[in-house]
Amino acid sequence: MDKSRLEKQFDFCREIDKEKFIGRQTYLTGGERKENDAEHAWHMALMAVILSEYANEEIDVLRTVTMLLIHDLVEIDAGDTYAYDAAGQRDKKQREAVAADRIFGLLPGEQEKRFRSLWEEFEEGATAEAKFAHMMDCIQPLMLNAATEGKSWAEHGVHLMQVLKRNQNTAEGSKELWKYAYDNFIVPNVKKGRLKGTLPYDA
Amino acid sequence: MDKSRLEKQFDFCREIDKEKFIGRQTYLTGGERKENDAEHAWHMALMAVILSEYANEEIDVLRTVTMLLIHDLVEIDAGDTYAYDAAGQRDKKQREAVAADRIFGLLPGEQEKRFRSLWEEFEEGATAEAKFAHMMDCIQPLMLNAATEGKSWAEHGVHLMQVLKRNQNTAEGSKELWKYAYDNFIVPNVKKGRLKGTLPYDA
Repeated sequence: MDKSRLEKQFDFCREIDKEKFIGRQTYLTGGERKENDAEHAWHMALMAVILSEYANEEIDVLRTVTMLLIHDLVEIDAGDTYAYDAAGQRDKKQREAVAADRIFGLLPGEQEKRFRSLWEEFEEGATAEAKFAHMMDCIQPLMLNAATEGKSWAEHGVHLMQVLKRNQNTAEGSKELWKYAYDNFIVPNVKKGRLKGTLPYDA
Repeated sequence: MDKSRLEKQFDFCREIDKEKFIGRQTYLTGGERKENDAEHAWHMALMAVILSEYANEEIDVLRTVTMLLIHDLVEIDAGDTYAYDAAGQRDKKQREAVAADRIFGLLPGEQEKRFRSLWEEFEEGATAEAKFAHMMDCIQPLMLNAATEGKSWAEHGVHLMQVLKRNQNTAEGSKELWKYAYDNFIVPNVKKGRLKGTLPYDA
């Protein structure tokens, strides 16, 4: 017998529980343990609500928040690829597309299309909402890294240039938030030697 | 010197990281470890987006999602009070009001008022959004308890009547979702003896 719409929706709701087991490389503010994807998504979704006024272009906040809530679901199958893991980044797209087929495929047809396409919109990063969501996805770990005296950067020997490259489009979401993050989360940590390299311009 | 609006907002964004350390009594689907408040809030916020079509009354989804994202922040100071801990429930209101003063007080004045009042709206449970959010706050742990063969219920020797009392207003958020939860998460677990007691009516 075919599953009802509601059964499919609950299958999805139960399956996404697994995102709580997907570890990231960022330490939480206490520095004791690292964050997982579900915690990360919650934190960013709420930050997006609080900080939406700083978006360069007007954004639909619910659309942005939903994007942030779902953006890492593919990692249930594909795993978290660390931002500074060059090898892992190479086949990330392929691994995540297969995961999206399975995970969003649990939803009823019309919802599958809608959430899959919202995830693709995030991945493409072209709309105002996707730009703001990407900015959040970069600034939240910068904030936590700064709060833990660069513990994760030190652990991986991260160079300032890697951070700047990773953040090359962050200002597209919000010039003001990027300036704040650069001045407060990056510059002091370069000066204290927690992030390797020399500042290209001063704050 | 007074802090800028943005500094206050980032103080709040950094402070809420602590919600990730507030443990709940519900086991995650694997049954290996229990959930924390941030994971719980993320899960429910996304479930609210997926299941909003079942609300008894039309709801503002962003308002509901924001309510769910912030509803447990007070537990950073007040701790999680288990739904079936009668003693803890007695002074919960007082402890949480003090916590709300401090935590929402980190935000700039107008945002403090807005988020504090949204949290109070959740606590009062009178609006359509608050009813839907409460329903989600009850159904998400029922779903996880059912997925872990009632592990948390067994650990605390929970009686069916406690679950029904806790859920006395759940149908106010969504009759359809309450019926689904009753039939699929509660009834089978009473029949299997994982939840003590006798069913008052059959599904």
